[in-house]
Amino acid sequence: MAMKWSIPAVEALKADGLRITDLDTSGTPGFTGDKSEGLVSLAERATVLSGLQEKLYANGRSGDKRSVLLVLQGMDTAGKGGIVRYVIGSVDPQGVDHAAFGVPTEKELRHHFLWRIRRELPGGGQLGVFDRSHYEDVLVVRVHDLVPPEEWEPRYDEINAFEEELVYEGTTLVKVAMFVSLDEQKRRLSERLERRDKHWKFNPADIDERAHWPAYQQAYQAMLDRTSSGHAPWYVIPADRKWFARLAVTELLIDALERLELDWPPPQFDIEEQKRRLAQI
Amino acid sequence: MAMKWSIPAVEALKADGLRITDLDTSGTPGFTGDKSEGLVSLAERATVLSGLQEKLYANGRSGDKRSVLLVLQGMDTAGKGGIVRYVIGSVDPQGVDHAAFGVPTEKELRHHFLWRIRRELPGGGQLGVFDRSHYEDVLVVRVHDLVPPEEWEPRYDEINAFEEELVYEGTTLVKVAMFVSLDEQKRRLSERLERRDKHWKFNPADIDERAHWPAYQQAYQAMLDRTSSGHAPWYVIPADRKWFARLAVTELLIDALERLELDWPPPQFDIEEQKRRLAQI
Repeated sequence: MAMKWSIPAVEALKADGLRITDLDTSGTPGFTGDKSEGLVSLAERATVLSGLQEKLYANGRSGDKRSVLLVLQGMDTAGKGGIVRYVIGSVDPQGVDHAAFGVPTEKELRHHFLWRIRRELPGGGQLGVFDRSHYEDVLVVRVHDLVPPEEWEPRYDEINAFEEELVYEGTTLVKVAMFVSLDEQKRRLSERLERRDKHWKFNPADIDERAHWPAYQQAYQAMLDRTSSGHAPWYVIPADRKWFARLAVTELLIDALERLELDWPPPQFDIEEQKRRLAQI
Repeated sequence: MAMKWSIPAVEALKADGLRITDLDTSGTPGFTGDKSEGLVSLAERATVLSGLQEKLYANGRSGDKRSVLLVLQGMDTAGKGGIVRYVIGSVDPQGVDHAAFGVPTEKELRHHFLWRIRRELPGGGQLGVFDRSHYEDVLVVRVHDLVPPEEWEPRYDEINAFEEELVYEGTTLVKVAMFVSLDEQKRRLSERLERRDKHWKFNPADIDERAHWPAYQQAYQAMLDRTSSGHAPWYVIPADRKWFARLAVTELLIDALERLELDWPPPQFDIEEQKRRLAQI
């Protein structure tokens, strides 16, 4: 086992008191191994994650209402898609409920900002994944003045109340904010422009957004400060190293699932009786 | 490359003219290799499938409306879940749209039988997966007289018309019927009763269904005879060997994706202009 955490990920990556402007986005907080050790650990821990997820799914099928919801936020190129592909990709798709949130449609804008979010909440036994989320409504919306401050300002409290309700109903939230440096983003956008198989990931608007970097940092800081709660804490992932970000999210999900203390659900039938019945037909 | 197909899967597994009662469910039609060769091939071909699926997804993101929809049918324990876990599990979850259909709810019953199906159709660029499907409405419904014959009888034609419409709109249907023998099903149900980590997969009703085996065979035969069309053919998979079933479905999906002749979508921007812009910020 290449377990090289000096501090568990769930401690090392806590957002509490963190200033984004001080963050070393190339760091690997809590992990003492190098890239090759990280990749070995990632492969091993993916198997653990997959086993735990199967138990969550099994319990859901047996009526357990609990679920886990991974909320992914981060600037363009931060690696959210890679988390879905390589971390969520290691578990059974039957138990995954994936939703991506973009700029709200006209129909969505006619509703409360949480309307489209509630429709995509995971059911019992599911591992939900939000690629962007309700937090867009205090990030891009705030930075670009899509609604006036008196409209987005109360959303922090609304989000806290909403998440408290989710936790009360049995959903464990794993909120992950991924950060790359402005330089690393430039490298990744450059690669998308160089490679024919990456052009589809490039959007000219991503370059426009770079001009708003300080405003985004402010909005992300406010988000962390105002919505990292005891029941739904934020984790901050330095994401310049893709292998570390993937390993870190794997660890956070494992921790969340372990805290559910899942066992295989007990049979809801008499085993011996069913064996006798099966023998006869 | 362990390509050991004497006849391509897409030919060897065609339902045309096949009598289910004549099927050797332990066979490996078209594949000349053994289990270990099959597993090597499966690993290699999973990578090919994943590459093609990424292109489908990329094109979808660029506005292509085409999609692929895998329809899985089969008796309990036939291995539908394993297909989702091990075949669909090899591609990027972002591009997968999975839906499982059970016994219709009261709300669903108040609608046309295709209502719940249409709601789950994959969007452009998506690989949709139906674990059971609209065919339940001519299988379990027919076997158990859940609606009178004058109601299920016209459904074959309705399904053909519906699928023709889907194909016209750009969806490639890959319809897969998986068959295990009555003995193999007994072994698999037995295992679910023996193993603590499999109890959750067992349902006493699965044993009741065994008594209806001939009626199900009849219903499956009618389904193949009446809904295997040029635009949406059925494939029949002998499924006693799990590795073969998974390899076969992988091949069918690869064939479907290859026929779309996907390339990376062309950039919808001027590359040099974007490079200049990026260099400045």
